[in-house]
Amino acid sequence: MFLFLFAIRSLSFETLKHLYPKSISSYLSILLSRTVADPLRTGSIMSQTRSHSGLLIEPDGGKLVELSVDESQRDLKRKEALNLPKIKLTKIDVEWVHVLSEGWASPLKGFMRESEFLQTLHFNSIRLEDGSVVNMSVPIVLAIDDSQKNQVDGSSSVALVVDENNPIAILTDIEIYKHNKEERIARTWGTTAPGLPYVDEAITHSGNWLIGGDLEVIEPVKYHDGLDSFRLSPSELRDEFTRRNADAVFAFQLRNPVHNGHALLMTDTRRLLLEMGYKNPILLLHPLGGYTKEDDVPLHWRMKQHEKVLEAGVLDPETTVLSIFPSPMHYAGPTEVQWHAKARINAGANFYIVGRDPAGMSHPLEKRDLYDADHGKKVLSMAPGLERLNILPFKVAAYDKTKNGMAFFDPSRPQDFIFISGTKMRTLAKTKESPPDGFMCPGGWKVLVEYYDSLDQAENGGVSEPVPA
Amino acid sequence: MFLFLFAIRSLSFETLKHLYPKSISSYLSILLSRTVADPLRTGSIMSQTRSHSGLLIEPDGGKLVELSVDESQRDLKRKEALNLPKIKLTKIDVEWVHVLSEGWASPLKGFMRESEFLQTLHFNSIRLEDGSVVNMSVPIVLAIDDSQKNQVDGSSSVALVVDENNPIAILTDIEIYKHNKEERIARTWGTTAPGLPYVDEAITHSGNWLIGGDLEVIEPVKYHDGLDSFRLSPSELRDEFTRRNADAVFAFQLRNPVHNGHALLMTDTRRLLLEMGYKNPILLLHPLGGYTKEDDVPLHWRMKQHEKVLEAGVLDPETTVLSIFPSPMHYAGPTEVQWHAKARINAGANFYIVGRDPAGMSHPLEKRDLYDADHGKKVLSMAPGLERLNILPFKVAAYDKTKNGMAFFDPSRPQDFIFISGTKMRTLAKTKESPPDGFMCPGGWKVLVEYYDSLDQAENGGVSEPVPA
Repeated sequence: MFLFLFAIRSLSFETLKHLYPKSISSYLSILLSRTVADPLRTGSIMSQTRSHSGLLIEPDGGKLVELSVDESQRDLKRKEALNLPKIKLTKIDVEWVHVLSEGWASPLKGFMRESEFLQTLHFNSIRLEDGSVVNMSVPIVLAIDDSQKNQVDGSSSVALVVDENNPIAILTDIEIYKHNKEERIARTWGTTAPGLPYVDEAITHSGNWLIGGDLEVIEPVKYHDGLDSFRLSPSELRDEFTRRNADAVFAFQLRNPVHNGHALLMTDTRRLLLEMGYKNPILLLHPLGGYTKEDDVPLHWRMKQHEKVLEAGVLDPETTVLSIFPSPMHYAGPTEVQWHAKARINAGANFYIVGRDPAGMSHPLEKRDLYDADHGKKVLSMAPGLERLNILPFKVAAYDKTKNGMAFFDPSRPQDFIFISGTKMRTLAKTKESPPDGFMCPGGWKVLVEYYDSLDQAENGGVSEPVPA
Repeated sequence: MFLFLFAIRSLSFETLKHLYPKSISSYLSILLSRTVADPLRTGSIMSQTRSHSGLLIEPDGGKLVELSVDESQRDLKRKEALNLPKIKLTKIDVEWVHVLSEGWASPLKGFMRESEFLQTLHFNSIRLEDGSVVNMSVPIVLAIDDSQKNQVDGSSSVALVVDENNPIAILTDIEIYKHNKEERIARTWGTTAPGLPYVDEAITHSGNWLIGGDLEVIEPVKYHDGLDSFRLSPSELRDEFTRRNADAVFAFQLRNPVHNGHALLMTDTRRLLLEMGYKNPILLLHPLGGYTKEDDVPLHWRMKQHEKVLEAGVLDPETTVLSIFPSPMHYAGPTEVQWHAKARINAGANFYIVGRDPAGMSHPLEKRDLYDADHGKKVLSMAPGLERLNILPFKVAAYDKTKNGMAFFDPSRPQDFIFISGTKMRTLAKTKESPPDGFMCPGGWKVLVEYYDSLDQAENGGVSEPVPA
């Protein structure tokens, strides 16, 4: 008997859904038709929405904002870019260009202008012209320093480049405003303690100005790392869900190896959605692919591990789409989990699984978690602009000795469970010990052991960046 | 020719209002009738709303939440309170009880529960059961320490006391949750730098827990300082506006002496509202009466100064209501200005005048203002739950040498203007020099000189707390 805490919510609809679970899909289609019927929005939606299945949740703002220029325009735009003032992008800046270009942050049309930045910091949401509200909790901004600002001043457009001769995008109708780093950090993370990974990596040494504007991406962002085929855009994901006849999509965000506790949860979620009357709920297994902190398992190894889990049939490939979410990681807990959920709406997910302390980490200075472990799911369930999304909180799974496998923790018999923390898992993999049978499929576990092995070799003067074969 | 920046906004209604200014009042009455017609809300509103003029803006949540118990119930409640665990209130806690009891924070029914606290920190707004959103930007919370928590644990109600035998309120259906001070401070002020006045006074040494619940106030909060008659509740203010047949109420929040630049702005606002078609716009001159930092002019002196301004006819007593806003001051800039505006909606104001850097101060450590001077009005104009309020930003007034009086600064002839900063004003008053003719009415100026005089006397061993005669 699993202790699955199945708290679908949407405030006033909560009771309704529990009483009439099969009515959720009709409720959603009512919602969709109501939105489309809005006379203020019909025009822009009808003309610009891609033809995806009517069963999928509508993107924020009514349409996916895709910012790549037509292939026929690329040469022209490239020439145009070469004559503009140039801003050199960092690796993380490029990841944000990628995120923006594919519409994960719809309806954002580029790096945030000040009004969007302020609304993000203060309200975690942005009001659109028609008065509706979309969620937006994490600033997606581009910092420039004083000398770059001086070079740009007077221009209405700038080129964004990786190197001088390689413009990847143009930012038009630009707006430059102050980058108050302290305030940005305090309002995003709820602390200004030194040692926040994204802050150290991307903010502390960045410029004192932010430049917003509309983005025209000249060349779709590719990484040429063997994983580009896994980087489906929201539009491609929607096509894939439609191809599979999905009538519900549930997203699982992760940045760690998948153990059987995760798998149990995902499998059980599908079972429950089927019980609720959905015919074909599809899992979006969606590892984060952008910047992560140094001690996280790198994307390559994680993807290799996830593939083993699918190969072993721990997750059913028929009903699972494995894809990479290109966003960098903030580790901003309750603030960031909203971004993780919102981006998945744009990719077609109408159910979102949220765990304990999502996007959390230890306090960089104090001996405690930075965020209350329950705040993530609480904040997510109340967040403006996410009312359409069904939040599925879950209880921690643990190793059940009576079943020789992972199960949801049953507080009535705590003696039967072993908690295998991330730290313990890493220690086991590093020392090449085996976890208890049923904790993870053997193929997946082997990938982890190989990863830590490669780290040892690197430390002993081997390869500097371990990449799986 | 005044440079009055008259930017009435409410996004999609902005254009409409500029084109058809006289339609604002009918737009408001449509809004009112639409809200009342909502079947989910009619019942509670009809039974509990006080009968105020239909011309005044509706309180947040549809009704003023007044939390004082009936006089007939007081003895009973007092006895009940004496048998409950007791929480001793600080002076600032009592100010918040005052604020809550009169409905300034409507629809809050007491000190915030965790869900309200989290929404305040993350979204500066709270979603009600019917799905509507009200603004709420500043946490109104009650902190308790570990030993108080132990005493309270297991009870469902607690008594709030000033001294052991004087319970002023009961908090029922209580909820205790963690007080993460760092996160609260970071998200409210956008900095955790030491030296924030409210933080030093009310947070740093407060307990590690917050206790929320519904408030039953046994005795209306009084200060017996000769100013209680100026402390009109939102309900009393609404009655006063109705008595005066106000068809528009514009609020001016202040915590400084009124000079003729302020007066000019207020007079000119009334003129513009008349031009827009309102018949009798009333000014709510609304000095903040709760906690202020040490170097602000104390309330007693400010009130004396404001009365002189009215006596001198610089402001017209016929169209001005001078009253005290009982809230303590956070000095939290763009976050706090929303609270200042929201509370005035509850008191019946549908226009709010916002200045440069509202509720701002210097950064406690760095040589700069803590907030961008324009962020207050920008954030206010975009804030969730304040769409119904008309925001009136204003340009700084300065002393115009060509007119021998205060006027709105005209950038085409900067040489004609003298800026008299707060620091300069204080220096002049301290050294008993006179400001230029027309800067402030002589009676008002005399009060300021007396105040700084009394400070000198206090420093030289005179009275410890200066109070006007």
